[in-house]
Amino acid sequence: MTEVTVETSLLERFHAARAASIALATTTGLERSTALLAIADAIDARTDDIVDANGLDLANGRENGLSTALLDRLSLSPERVASLSASVREIAALPDPLGQTVRGSRLANGLKIDQVRVPFGVVGAIYEARPNVTVDIACLALASGNAGILRGGSAAERSNAVLVSIIRSALDSAGLPADAVQTIDDFGREGASALMQARGFVDVLVPRGSAGLIETVVSSSTVPVIETGAGIVHIVLDRSAREDWAVDIVHNAKVQRPSVCNSVETLLVHADAARRLLPPVLDRLAAAGVTVHGDEATRSIWPAALPASDDEWSTEHLSLDIGVRVVDGLDDAVAHIRRYSTGHTESIITEDLAAAERFLAEVDSAVVMVNASTRFTDGGEFGFGAEVGISTQKLHARGPMGLSELTSTKWIVRGNGQSRS
Amino acid sequence: MTEVTVETSLLERFHAARAASIALATTTGLERSTALLAIADAIDARTDDIVDANGLDLANGRENGLSTALLDRLSLSPERVASLSASVREIAALPDPLGQTVRGSRLANGLKIDQVRVPFGVVGAIYEARPNVTVDIACLALASGNAGILRGGSAAERSNAVLVSIIRSALDSAGLPADAVQTIDDFGREGASALMQARGFVDVLVPRGSAGLIETVVSSSTVPVIETGAGIVHIVLDRSAREDWAVDIVHNAKVQRPSVCNSVETLLVHADAARRLLPPVLDRLAAAGVTVHGDEATRSIWPAALPASDDEWSTEHLSLDIGVRVVDGLDDAVAHIRRYSTGHTESIITEDLAAAERFLAEVDSAVVMVNASTRFTDGGEFGFGAEVGISTQKLHARGPMGLSELTSTKWIVRGNGQSRS
Repeated sequence: MTEVTVETSLLERFHAARAASIALATTTGLERSTALLAIADAIDARTDDIVDANGLDLANGRENGLSTALLDRLSLSPERVASLSASVREIAALPDPLGQTVRGSRLANGLKIDQVRVPFGVVGAIYEARPNVTVDIACLALASGNAGILRGGSAAERSNAVLVSIIRSALDSAGLPADAVQTIDDFGREGASALMQARGFVDVLVPRGSAGLIETVVSSSTVPVIETGAGIVHIVLDRSAREDWAVDIVHNAKVQRPSVCNSVETLLVHADAARRLLPPVLDRLAAAGVTVHGDEATRSIWPAALPASDDEWSTEHLSLDIGVRVVDGLDDAVAHIRRYSTGHTESIITEDLAAAERFLAEVDSAVVMVNASTRFTDGGEFGFGAEVGISTQKLHARGPMGLSELTSTKWIVRGNGQSRS
Repeated sequence: MTEVTVETSLLERFHAARAASIALATTTGLERSTALLAIADAIDARTDDIVDANGLDLANGRENGLSTALLDRLSLSPERVASLSASVREIAALPDPLGQTVRGSRLANGLKIDQVRVPFGVVGAIYEARPNVTVDIACLALASGNAGILRGGSAAERSNAVLVSIIRSALDSAGLPADAVQTIDDFGREGASALMQARGFVDVLVPRGSAGLIETVVSSSTVPVIETGAGIVHIVLDRSAREDWAVDIVHNAKVQRPSVCNSVETLLVHADAARRLLPPVLDRLAAAGVTVHGDEATRSIWPAALPASDDEWSTEHLSLDIGVRVVDGLDDAVAHIRRYSTGHTESIITEDLAAAERFLAEVDSAVVMVNASTRFTDGGEFGFGAEVGISTQKLHARGPMGLSELTSTKWIVRGNGQSRS
């Protein structure tokens, strides 16, 4: 295939997605949820095809020496396919974000102005070898009235191709344009580059995957990007922290699901409370199999800790490991967080009102907590229903993103002949 | 000055701005408005210094052959300095956007979650030779609790240097960090490049100026950009349009201030109404000195029109020129707008409810109007008080931007020991 053919054909898909997005923008919520239910049914009905295609990807991955962890992410068993369709039905049941009036007023001259939610238009996604993201992003885009252009990892190419084909057929059968969901996996890296430069065709780009992937997309894209970043998440045990809350919350934040971005990575303990709190908190962690990487002060109190390495405080373990540091006080804790946090989530355990309010005011992260587990930073827990991701940037969306974060707004102005004087 | 020195010193300013932004984030609205009033007073008190420095820039500009129009933009007379300080006092009087609760709820588990407005942190601005932008952007940033790093056009370097020095002294005298406002004009193009790559130091970048400047910033920046774009603005005269509204609104939208982005550039007239509406509408425009560039159908009805050139429909005149095209109906009008609009503002003049609703639903621009002049797309007219610009992008802000569009949010979570189950 020559380069010219590839580019023309990519451009055709971009055009088709743009055209489909215009049709989608004026659909009703009922039309979109009906289409999503049709997609869920089609995924169930074609479970065997999906598992077969995935089997080819898995065999290929084994040949290419993919790690066991990557092969696990890539794998779609019949049970995983069933949970995919279940999540599509959950998305279908969410309230329609479109048409909501965000702000509105009547001006002195009689003009009625209303800011209402509308779709972005076309949402692009660049992600790695997790075929579930294909279904997830496509259906979140559709639920919010957007067309989606998907570029998944090459290791999942066959699985993604079948899933996209199922989604497109179901859209067509439900009377919505099939072109609202496009894959460009067959264009390889060239497709990803074109997608990142597709200003005018693509309104927003959502990268999903490793820090390296997100960094590449942010640096290379001229399309605006919604960045979902890493979580170097901190818990601070203040001087006045209740021991039972400290023990339970730190255990929950580290152990309940260590592989996700809202799990705690660093524990900062007020020097005045270190002797009281570190033994029970760290004993509980150790009993759950957590490896503690402590600074000198921590190790003098709790000698089983390994010495923290130089890069401990900037490491996102995503495993049963935690860094522990004794700090001189709240100023020291906040300074540490400013230096090392990725701006995801930080929590303080305290009984001191002034300390709580200072922490909430001075720590600049997407989510700042008092006396709660960092694991609550989650779209589902926040009541948004869907999990679009956790934004760690400050533009447009910050923190857990629901369907409304996949929308823009426009202003509707209704007059009766007004001119400006 | 060696390159290493330059880079270190730029980095020092970025660090200083970041540190100042941390202090600003916890200031009260009263502290910030007091500082803004001190800045306004200082601008008044040092009018002579400003005019003198500007005189050097103007002399330099004349030597370098700047056009009369550019020299006019660059020029700061005592009257213009007075209007600068007046606009700072207006900004000081605006309600504080910080601390507003955007959304909030109590979850079933007792957690109280609130999404509250916080500053971005550091706002960068890249603009051309208009020294008023220096004061405008710096004070809008301060009013919304942000530090600002400014890179103005080299032609205004002396004027900007004096203005920034006045702002910094006034901040200091008001007890706020002087480093909250930084200029990097002295680093030339290198400074602009560094600013566009300053992820981690700069949270958002606002380009102000020509389409070329904005395009360069959008393509080159790894910092998120808020794009304020050009306005190829349309008015559609529907079959049922009232003649008096059509005449008045088109005249207002073209003639009242043709040099701004919300003035109309293209008039689309329903074929069934062209003979009725074009003569009175175009006669009124011609009487005001407007040059009409018409398609063939327009010229057959109103022969004084010049023939529209091939690129008429994609031209932002910003002058007393207007393109006029007869369309087959609403579908044709919407298709024309989709092809040529920059997504700023479009208005339809109609008496037909169904046509109005279709236009509002199908036209995807920042502001869509019925029976009103496009000149109303303006932060001041919308009641926002300040004029940060008109966003033509869909991420974060769309349409007129007020102070709250210069803020982000964070989630505050208050618990009493909750862990996730």
